[in-house]
Amino acid sequence: MRSTKCVVLGGGGFIGTNLCRYLLGRVAELRAFGYGPSFPDAVRGVVWHEGGFDDAGRLAAAVDGCDTVFHLISSATPASPVGDTVADLTATLRLLELCRAGAVGRIVFVSSGGTVYGVPATVPTPEDAPTDPITAYGIAKLAIEKHLALYRHLHGLDYRILRVANPFGPFQTAGKGQGVIAAFLRRALAGQPVEIWGTGDVVRDYVYVDDVVEALVLAATHAGDERLFNIGSGVGRSLAAIVDDLGAVLGRPPEIVHREGRAVDVPRSVLDITRARHDLGWEPRTDWHDGLRRTRDWIAAAGLG
Amino acid sequence: MRSTKCVVLGGGGFIGTNLCRYLLGRVAELRAFGYGPSFPDAVRGVVWHEGGFDDAGRLAAAVDGCDTVFHLISSATPASPVGDTVADLTATLRLLELCRAGAVGRIVFVSSGGTVYGVPATVPTPEDAPTDPITAYGIAKLAIEKHLALYRHLHGLDYRILRVANPFGPFQTAGKGQGVIAAFLRRALAGQPVEIWGTGDVVRDYVYVDDVVEALVLAATHAGDERLFNIGSGVGRSLAAIVDDLGAVLGRPPEIVHREGRAVDVPRSVLDITRARHDLGWEPRTDWHDGLRRTRDWIAAAGLG
Repeated sequence: MRSTKCVVLGGGGFIGTNLCRYLLGRVAELRAFGYGPSFPDAVRGVVWHEGGFDDAGRLAAAVDGCDTVFHLISSATPASPVGDTVADLTATLRLLELCRAGAVGRIVFVSSGGTVYGVPATVPTPEDAPTDPITAYGIAKLAIEKHLALYRHLHGLDYRILRVANPFGPFQTAGKGQGVIAAFLRRALAGQPVEIWGTGDVVRDYVYVDDVVEALVLAATHAGDERLFNIGSGVGRSLAAIVDDLGAVLGRPPEIVHREGRAVDVPRSVLDITRARHDLGWEPRTDWHDGLRRTRDWIAAAGLG
Repeated sequence: MRSTKCVVLGGGGFIGTNLCRYLLGRVAELRAFGYGPSFPDAVRGVVWHEGGFDDAGRLAAAVDGCDTVFHLISSATPASPVGDTVADLTATLRLLELCRAGAVGRIVFVSSGGTVYGVPATVPTPEDAPTDPITAYGIAKLAIEKHLALYRHLHGLDYRILRVANPFGPFQTAGKGQGVIAAFLRRALAGQPVEIWGTGDVVRDYVYVDDVVEALVLAATHAGDERLFNIGSGVGRSLAAIVDDLGAVLGRPPEIVHREGRAVDVPRSVLDITRARHDLGWEPRTDWHDGLRRTRDWIAAAGLG
């Protein structure tokens, strides 16, 4: 990617920060777009374009001259009401028009492995499983995916989609109600009880952010025919099991309080990552306990716990 | 449906006019919403609520007190640019909020059997085939379908979706570039050549509008578990074959001019209607040549040919 001029939309967020740190010095030009970095020291050297995703002028300036766009920006979360999610779709359509008018050759889009399938009939869930989201957030991600395929069909704008499971690791702040591992670690390190929503039986697929970054980088230059990849660990873990593992990493079991479950929760979400393994040459390489330890160390060092 | 209070969104359009004519006198209250009827005499007795789909206030007044909503309204067409199609999605989300706040128990939505599947791998195409539209129009229809399922999941608002193939029959004016049979008949009756876009090999599934109306009425009260139905004839016909059949109905072969094909065209679209037959108890009953003759007679009588 030495000669690549790229922009990371949402470069100040959790995955964006990690991606920018990896790309720094490895690409010809690195820009980030969004509401400014959460951790400015961590992304020093990145050319920042500040703006909201709905700010067409600033978005155009950020994309202008780039050949690769990493689209990680989202103003909505899985718990967002219908309507807020359509704003992300509308802004993405504006982005697609900018890309096809400009020099952009590829968009790498981070979709949502945990919401686009809805309540999956098959677990682990492969990419060709039915997509019946039970959140407006998941529907918007899916609609964006379909428009990416449309722009390739109509205009030759290439793309790769990563349906990322539940990422965790450094620079996740658990700020928007996302990131259960960061939230648990912050509370446990601060001596507060961790909150379990629902029964604790909810199973998710947690993937360490360095592995996600590697998948994004591979997707930026991937030459195969597949354009849609699940990115997860392929392993399901219940909230209850996570609390146990955090106890081992912290040296003491965290105190637990139970809260009522949310309607947005599917009971079990684990991704089948066979396609990414075979076709993208990708592998989730970070050991689960290593990932937890590194996340714990970062939260402690950042003074967030 | 004797005690039903219903509103037909898009009641002035092609399918809407036919549906209103059927429902008149068969339901307790019949309203129509949209930009006014194309053929006012044909829908006399329907309580009209005039407004654009984006006019939230007028839409609310039209839906208020209704238990059944027929959603046939669309400002976009299959050839619409991206962006125009999102307006239909946004307006539909507003509609869903109105329905869940009000007394509406069911929405019957007319989706697009010819565009949601994209280029189908299986022909005839069943409802569970992959949905990879190659038009923004098809993506918007699909996103609306997903939101209907979401509102049932979250709020218990029931729905049925009909993925209608290419409908034809009386009250189709071929005004928005839709309705090849109406367009051919108008030109042929006026002594003008018919225009074939592309090679003439393009295959579609044409279904007579009375059969579509019957499916809509069945869907309004259907009690089974399936909520998504293909509605077509199940038979594929090429443009070239249609021109031949129109020649038989008109007593002389129409003159033909060839035009360049459009990027929005999938080569072959035929629906598998097994599910509607088994589960909705529906059957496309109108004979193909009968349908063509009745359409011819209506166009001649309406002075459109």
